[in-house]
Amino acid sequence: MGRASKGRPAAAPGPVIIMVRPQLGENIGMAARAMLNCGLSTLRLVAPRDGWPNERAQRAASGADVVLDNAEVFDTVGEAVADLEHVVATTARNRELVQRIVTARAAASEMRGWIGQGLNVGVLFGPERTGLENDDMVHADTALSIPLNPQFSSLNVAQAVLLVSYEWATAGDATPPARMADHAARPATKEELQNLFDHLERALDQSGFLRHKDMRPAMVLNLRALLQRAEMTEQEARTFHGVIKFLSKHKHEE
Amino acid sequence: MGRASKGRPAAAPGPVIIMVRPQLGENIGMAARAMLNCGLSTLRLVAPRDGWPNERAQRAASGADVVLDNAEVFDTVGEAVADLEHVVATTARNRELVQRIVTARAAASEMRGWIGQGLNVGVLFGPERTGLENDDMVHADTALSIPLNPQFSSLNVAQAVLLVSYEWATAGDATPPARMADHAARPATKEELQNLFDHLERALDQSGFLRHKDMRPAMVLNLRALLQRAEMTEQEARTFHGVIKFLSKHKHEE
Repeated sequence: MGRASKGRPAAAPGPVIIMVRPQLGENIGMAARAMLNCGLSTLRLVAPRDGWPNERAQRAASGADVVLDNAEVFDTVGEAVADLEHVVATTARNRELVQRIVTARAAASEMRGWIGQGLNVGVLFGPERTGLENDDMVHADTALSIPLNPQFSSLNVAQAVLLVSYEWATAGDATPPARMADHAARPATKEELQNLFDHLERALDQSGFLRHKDMRPAMVLNLRALLQRAEMTEQEARTFHGVIKFLSKHKHEE
Repeated sequence: MGRASKGRPAAAPGPVIIMVRPQLGENIGMAARAMLNCGLSTLRLVAPRDGWPNERAQRAASGADVVLDNAEVFDTVGEAVADLEHVVATTARNRELVQRIVTARAAASEMRGWIGQGLNVGVLFGPERTGLENDDMVHADTALSIPLNPQFSSLNVAQAVLLVSYEWATAGDATPPARMADHAARPATKEELQNLFDHLERALDQSGFLRHKDMRPAMVLNLRALLQRAEMTEQEARTFHGVIKFLSKHKHEE
């Protein structure tokens, strides 16, 4: 226990998660897992109720032991944040202190900026049931409030750690919002699709499905639009050719 | 048990959360809490391992009983999604099916759109340890993958429900990203700030702090910029006037 030190190298830079007077070991363990899920690994504990190390925390952390093994313990919030240039304090309710309140998403964006500049950042989480006191909050330059259902806003501390860590992770995440599953088959080209349309329309003409000349253009367009939306792979287009061929060849009554 | 019905009125429209073959009652209870935290209340269960109702679920759900009390149980995924126009299936790993994969954030945005159009939407979550099978996934039009640390991506199902529900809630949330805590005191006007600057600069001139004429303009500007950044309330400006007054009046050696 002592003053926070800048000496330890970070795996990938990220905010320090600081649990203030955590009560249940299980919550510390679950918080460690949540952190690691989101690529964070630096945990500090201020005056944990049941001391440290904590067997219940270790059991609940299964797989995220590295976070607990490297966790630092402090007696006071002041000591835990001494080396940090920015501290964000999570709060569930509006307190008398006048502070700038940001959403978890905005905080993540700001933290990305600060850390990108090489600054050290920490996020404070309060004890279960009571949350951070004003004396804790005043160590922070920013308050963070997770927007939740006002009729049911009580969130387990490990879940709060998860949400804040998740926002951090997604603020730096480059995953495209939507993509096709990455498999061996590539998307069909428009030429391959046109061949499919031609095949389908020949077969439908031959079967009499498109016999109403006035309605034919619209029906053809609608079928093509439908098949375009399917965003077929080249493999699927070939499969569909087979479907048309066999349905046409092997006439049968339904 | 039976086919899903459209008959029940929704509190506020939102996606239906569907847990497929959930194993642990505690996870169902925690998922119910996570849903309610984010303003969701419609839960469906497909073939829960330990049957229904489930005492462990009820204990873990404490406070979120309304979600469990109204949960519907089905034998198959097909029956659970029968009345829905869109189904999003959460998946942790890439499977052989060719599906459109979106992030939780993109899914939330799409769901807001669908629900805004009056469509019924559901999100599938798989059993602990194994997740959804291909036979489950094929009931969905969209796959959802939460971007997590590839080295440590195993997430408890209740936490997955929390993250998806949270993205839903924030997609419709109007909380400004950053705001000043909402208290009785309003921000000081620029005129009130100017009065404060004038007071401070008079006191500093009288005390000799600004005696270097060439440096004075820059020092004055820097002090003003600092005080502007504090975003003082009108109350704080008045307090600061008192600080200046008393420091000036009651000269003492440090």
